[in-house]
Amino acid sequence: MFVYERTVRFHEVDAAGLLFFPWFFSYAHEAMEAWCGALDGGYARLILQRRVGLPAVALASEFVAPLRYGDAARVELGVSRLGNRSLTLEYGFRRRSDGESCATISHTVVCTDLDALASTDMPSDLRELAAQHLRTSSG
Amino acid sequence: MFVYERTVRFHEVDAAGLLFFPWFFSYAHEAMEAWCGALDGGYARLILQRRVGLPAVALASEFVAPLRYGDAARVELGVSRLGNRSLTLEYGFRRRSDGESCATISHTVVCTDLDALASTDMPSDLRELAAQHLRTSSG
Amino acid sequence: MFVYERTVRFHEVDAAGLLFFPWFFSYAHEAMEAWCGALDGGYARLILQRRVGLPAVALASEFVAPLRYGDAARVELGVSRLGNRSLTLEYGFRRRSDGESCATISHTVVCTDLDALASTDMPSDLRELAAQHLRTSSG
Amino acid sequence: MFVYERTVRFHEVDAAGLLFFPWFFSYAHEAMEAWCGALDGGYARLILQRRVGLPAVALASEFVAPLRYGDAARVELGVSRLGNRSLTLEYGFRRRSDGESCATISHTVVCTDLDALASTDMPSDLRELAAQHLRTSSG
Repeated sequence: MFVYERTVRFHEVDAAGLLFFPWFFSYAHEAMEAWCGALDGGYARLILQRRVGLPAVALASEFVAPLRYGDAARVELGVSRLGNRSLTLEYGFRRRSDGESCATISHTVVCTDLDALASTDMPSDLRELAAQHLRTSSG
Repeated sequence: MFVYERTVRFHEVDAAGLLFFPWFFSYAHEAMEAWCGALDGGYARLILQRRVGLPAVALASEFVAPLRYGDAARVELGVSRLGNRSLTLEYGFRRRSDGESCATISHTVVCTDLDALASTDMPSDLRELAAQHLRTSSG
Repeated sequence: MFVYERTVRFHEVDAAGLLFFPWFFSYAHEAMEAWCGALDGGYARLILQRRVGLPAVALASEFVAPLRYGDAARVELGVSRLGNRSLTLEYGFRRRSDGESCATISHTVVCTDLDALASTDMPSDLRELAAQHLRTSSG
Repeated sequence: MFVYERTVRFHEVDAAGLLFFPWFFSYAHEAMEAWCGALDGGYARLILQRRVGLPAVALASEFVAPLRYGDAARVELGVSRLGNRSLTLEYGFRRRSDGESCATISHTVVCTDLDALASTDMPSDLRELAAQHLRTSSG
């Protein structure tokens, strides 16, 4: 499991005073970027030089408790499915102060050649990284 | 069906040059805000004076085609389920120039007393609005 | 004078309940994008096909009254200086409901070849557009 | 001098591939929030419990070099002026990899009672913090 922590920022709450829910997806993406820090040059090089992106094709999420300004989020990232050209990432969000579960996100991405905008085989280093975080059925 | 249109802004694309996917949820929320314009004082009064919010409890989405800077999104909003305290909104995203389908979002919200942060019965004006946009099984 | 109007969105306020000030600059940029709608293909074609950008090199702003969720901003755009490769845009922000002045921004941009990332002469259509909105000293 | 470091995120660049300039102000605000971490309960408690905010009344900035996705910003914060109810913060932005100067921001804020939305005397702990970072004329 890969863990990413992040403070809720002053401007990320909405007029109801709660973290605006699209930010959960942005936090998830940040967690994925941080996770890809294990690749040479990280996600930035993957996108800008290697020209392989990971656009979302499907998302499912549940929200059970809000986050507010001053809270910190703990995001736990795992891989639930690993295909030839796609993978599904799972994120669990907890409030860091008390460990309360706030949200879950299931995020399916497809390896995409950013110049052709067509799917492409997963690069081997990304495959190895994903395999290391793959949750086994017995897990 | 309620329709909301929106141009992709200069700053809403990501380093891959595509609309960053959390913005689809932000656009959906904007569509819901615009839809609530039919209520007296709109969504702003609902939140700030009436102190009733509609936080998301579940989301499911699929993304089939990207949007880029210069594109405009056409968001089609409908209601697929209407409960006592919750409702499910469905959004279809199309690229306005050619009508191509880009994404769908299913968005379940719960009427929430923002002071108590507890669920509350749906206000009658919101219920009537939702009932007008409820898709019947034969539809 | 070019006028751009914009509703403050649910997610654009901060934890103090006021429009987060960097959004004023984003609104100004939107106003500039809308103003460039008079160019063939607009700002999107300028950036993506013609590969000329207008990055900011200097900004000065004053904030005198806040905007809140539910307010609409009226942004009035003019040009105060027009050089060979740069121009200065002036923006006045008013609350639409009562016309109260909220903020002013002075925004100097340099025409930039986005491939070379070096300054370049202003395209003639942009120059003509800017000249039309140039405030004369007697104005 | 207080230093805050921050990676440019995937979604913070614009359609020209550069950090969208309003984010510089957001980074500056994050730096100020981090700097206020020295106060008991930090900026979040200042806003949410103590109900004192620091809205901007004036900003001046210059931009000399862009930041891109994959870059990290180093933000150096100091105080150039300390009044009874206001202070001016200065931020210098550098690209962390090579130390190149990217931008400067001068940011004047007024201590504001968030319930009355009127200026108020600066809390003593904030004054002490600001005094510690005040640049002397000989510095």
